Amino acid sequence: MSHQGNEARPGLVSLVGAGPGAPDLLTLRGLRALERAQVILPDALLDPGFQELYPAEALVVPVGKRCGAGTPQETIFGLLVGFARQGRRVVRLKGGDPMLFGRGGEEAQVLEAAGVPFELIPGVSALQGGAAAAGLPLTHRGLSREVRILEGHHLLSADTDWAGLARGGATLAIFMGTRTLEAVAGKLLEHGADPALPVALVERAFCQGEATSFGTLQDAARGLLNASTQGPGIVYLGAALKARTHPIHVMPSLAERTPHGTHAASPLS
Amino acid sequence: MSHQGNEARPGLVSLVGAGPGAPDLLTLRGLRALERAQVILPDALLDPGFQELYPAEALVVPVGKRCGAGTPQETIFGLLVGFARQGRRVVRLKGGDPMLFGRGGEEAQVLEAAGVPFELIPGVSALQGGAAAAGLPLTHRGLSREVRILEGHHLLSADTDWAGLARGGATLAIFMGTRTLEAVAGKLLEHGADPALPVALVERAFCQGEATSFGTLQDAARGLLNASTQGPGIVYLGAALKARTHPIHVMPSLAERTPHGTHAASPLS
Repeated sequence: MSHQGNEARPGLVSLVGAGPGAPDLLTLRGLRALERAQVILPDALLDPGFQELYPAEALVVPVGKRCGAGTPQETIFGLLVGFARQGRRVVRLKGGDPMLFGRGGEEAQVLEAAGVPFELIPGVSALQGGAAAAGLPLTHRGLSREVRILEGHHLLSADTDWAGLARGGATLAIFMGTRTLEAVAGKLLEHGADPALPVALVERAFCQGEATSFGTLQDAARGLLNASTQGPGIVYLGAALKARTHPIHVMPSLAERTPHGTHAASPLS
Repeated sequence: MSHQGNEARPGLVSLVGAGPGAPDLLTLRGLRALERAQVILPDALLDPGFQELYPAEALVVPVGKRCGAGTPQETIFGLLVGFARQGRRVVRLKGGDPMLFGRGGEEAQVLEAAGVPFELIPGVSALQGGAAAAGLPLTHRGLSREVRILEGHHLLSADTDWAGLARGGATLAIFMGTRTLEAVAGKLLEHGADPALPVALVERAFCQGEATSFGTLQDAARGLLNASTQGPGIVYLGAALKARTHPIHVMPSLAERTPHGTHAASPLS
């Protein structure tokens, strides 16, 4: 056990996408990074089930929040660089995917500027999580060949090309879309969007309390698509949703989930 | 061991996203579905390393291709429904994420119409894979709050709003973007896009032979961003790429990868 000798060894920071919610939607590579981590900085709002994946010896420092207030980003930068300079193997575990609305790009820039080696392990984005949970194709032959990933508040505050959005064709996926849904739907209708376009609001995909509201753009503009939770939701909108299906959820309990366990006894029993 | 009694039991089809390439970018839930599968229908072009994840007893029928010719989709539909009606646990393992350019929506529709229960297990999309491999933020504060996921051939053949795309603001991610890159870049310049916008062509993210070409929109229009492989690539384009960083790749060999293995000995050694 070296104590002071660590400074000479370069540390490593792994920026890891935790996936859309359920711990078993983490990748195998992400799990492996956790298993080797000496320090773990998870988003504070991650599912508590992730704790089962952390090595008992690891120092765990929850930081930040998925939306809004929490640990200041400057503090997170300081922790990442500080632990890495002590020669530690650090995992920064971020909801969704680090490079999509995750500020992973900013953390990577700070690490690069500090001369800290880092790796990026992609994750299943909330984009994919919501679509799979609710049976919504993002692209579908004859219906949509484009997806536009947007953010609710930004849409309403920025110089948005509403006519372009209303023209249709693309599937819209609006992150943090719950509170702005009614206003966004109204703007789209104003600019000529089809009132019958299907809209889905997906909350807590693959987590306890998962909920999907489904309706038309007209319904959404009238406030008929109600949020079931206080948390962030993703709004999906577009013709591709006409091909919606109804997958079942084979939700393993945490106890049943066996990332380190044995193979299923006999798959042909 | 029941032989003929299976027909009465409903089967289950899991449509599983395999992730962007490397087998360890599969999710834990996806692995679990594979471990329990009696029949596996993987995309024919998946990394051969996935074979290590299939139970020895499972029947494996490679189908389709990621791009272009291969098993007709009708045949895939027939196999999925047929095996499920025999009461089997079937995994359809698809590159990337099933709901994004994966025709997973069509397979789900066929299963639903046939009364076959199915689940959707999302995967890390090539969108995320390419971005993480090449250190490209998809969104970045002050640079981009929107991502548009497009397809190269469709862009050139459809009634595309080039002025809207050229306006900038969004990060463009163009699937199957290699062969159409020069023409698409030319169209964007024609419609007033900034010639200095950064462009990246990412091929075989997280796989053997991974390659990234980086340059400006002007370079791309002049054919200076060259493909390194015959396979499909993703083109990323937009101001967010100014925040590009250089992650290291901690590429575990397949032998070293231990999804079923032991924890790392002592993370604080």
